[in-house]
Amino acid sequence: MAEPLVFAPDYLLPVHMQGAVGYREGHEPDAELLERVGFFVPAYIEHPNAGWIARMPRLEVVQLPTVGFDAVVPKLPTGVTLCNAAGVHEQSTAELAVGSIITVWRGLDRAARDMVEGAWSHRRGRSLQQARVVIIGAGGVGTAIARTLEPFGCVTTVLARTRRPSVAPIADLHEILPRTDIVILAVPLTDETAGMVNDDFLSRLADGSLVVNVSRGSVAVTEDILRHAGRLDFALDVTEPEPLPETHRLWSTPGVFITPHIGGDTDAFPRLAQQLIGEQVECWRNDQPLRNVVASG
Amino acid sequence: MAEPLVFAPDYLLPVHMQGAVGYREGHEPDAELLERVGFFVPAYIEHPNAGWIARMPRLEVVQLPTVGFDAVVPKLPTGVTLCNAAGVHEQSTAELAVGSIITVWRGLDRAARDMVEGAWSHRRGRSLQQARVVIIGAGGVGTAIARTLEPFGCVTTVLARTRRPSVAPIADLHEILPRTDIVILAVPLTDETAGMVNDDFLSRLADGSLVVNVSRGSVAVTEDILRHAGRLDFALDVTEPEPLPETHRLWSTPGVFITPHIGGDTDAFPRLAQQLIGEQVECWRNDQPLRNVVASG
Repeated sequence: MAEPLVFAPDYLLPVHMQGAVGYREGHEPDAELLERVGFFVPAYIEHPNAGWIARMPRLEVVQLPTVGFDAVVPKLPTGVTLCNAAGVHEQSTAELAVGSIITVWRGLDRAARDMVEGAWSHRRGRSLQQARVVIIGAGGVGTAIARTLEPFGCVTTVLARTRRPSVAPIADLHEILPRTDIVILAVPLTDETAGMVNDDFLSRLADGSLVVNVSRGSVAVTEDILRHAGRLDFALDVTEPEPLPETHRLWSTPGVFITPHIGGDTDAFPRLAQQLIGEQVECWRNDQPLRNVVASG
Repeated sequence: MAEPLVFAPDYLLPVHMQGAVGYREGHEPDAELLERVGFFVPAYIEHPNAGWIARMPRLEVVQLPTVGFDAVVPKLPTGVTLCNAAGVHEQSTAELAVGSIITVWRGLDRAARDMVEGAWSHRRGRSLQQARVVIIGAGGVGTAIARTLEPFGCVTTVLARTRRPSVAPIADLHEILPRTDIVILAVPLTDETAGMVNDDFLSRLADGSLVVNVSRGSVAVTEDILRHAGRLDFALDVTEPEPLPETHRLWSTPGVFITPHIGGDTDAFPRLAQQLIGEQVECWRNDQPLRNVVASG
């Protein structure tokens, strides 16, 4: 029997990789091909083809092209290792978080809409200088955001479950929120973080504070966002539900800026993902430990 | 005769300053009051009240609340010192430059307009990681932009008239432009820089490059921007003419993102300007050298 195959979206496959087959996202593969797959990279963003896993009897590794992995864990067969794409998307997400803050605080979203009317409407913005920023989550994304904010002159606190050097414990959250200008959500979606940003959380924030969500929509309760929007500002790259239906109230609620889950998706993504996949396949074939292991079936 | 007065917009006057009078922008002062002014802070942004200078016989210092000073130089009487607000606006302008780049490269302007339609329209953006950035101007603004871009992982070159450590000479411009992804204009408006960004300049840029103007509208030739827009992207915080008339073609030209000259105008401005004015008045009264002297009448 031949070596098990590497099977990945064609644009994520390193060039000249032996024993690898690329697929076009949205196309249905041969059942025979799936039976030969040992290393599988599901399709980008919501992994619509994760169901193929059940048809891969020789599967050993699922290498996700995303940082988020919550949707794939329940589908993982016994003995299969799940890896995420930590390192590939963090800086792109940090760029978006910083860009979204500046967009809301300097009114760039309003300027974009004013262009349609030909309206030159000067208003004073808010500066990040001396702003009090809280980042919830000290993983790759939270750390990248903190690092990227350094030259902006804000006062940044990173919060996580466990106390570590330069990270405050999440237990301090309720005390810190009232003295915060910007809260950035950079946590994975887990039982603990689902619905974390609810009415109680938002009520602790002072008028005019900004909440930035670049993690998962379900970390915040949409009804509670709607309740506080206007008093608070929101920059949401992720929503619940997602995609947000055309008629959803969130689109037209003042104080809400929405981007369509573009956090990690830049031209840096295929480049860095190809590099990661190349290295992981090398480890897998040589029985070396894999990086970014997030679960084992 | 009493000490000459400090005369400044009321929101820029340090609290508890003796011998100082605040004025409300847009209001006409008493002629008698003007005759007593020794230290004058003109109104913010375009200095609409710079004409008052001619009615201030005891004037010694004009302290601008802006970095740009070109419009006031011709109005400066003999013996009067002109100071700008270097240090007050740079970081706010750097924030805007960075925010404008992320807005254009990640499609945040399109996302703002898509919100009106309720359209969730995911597209891949461009990342600053490894982008080749050229900043023209090594003054306060150019330096602040370079510093702020540091954690973004781009390859930044600062150009200025004279070679200095970590600054390349402007003579290299023509050679550098074809290998540039983003050009940021951060020069003062002078005879040398007026119209610098013309058809010849823009023709040297590769398709898809982005030009960011946070200096003065007249540094670029509007007709030439219109000629290259689409092939190139533009993020313009300043335009010629300014304000841009409602029916101007620039508003609706694809590849152009316009903000209404908000570069230096954030909530950090009154705070930092008050501090500067306080220190300058102190120097003036004690015959100490002033900071930020840009011209002498």
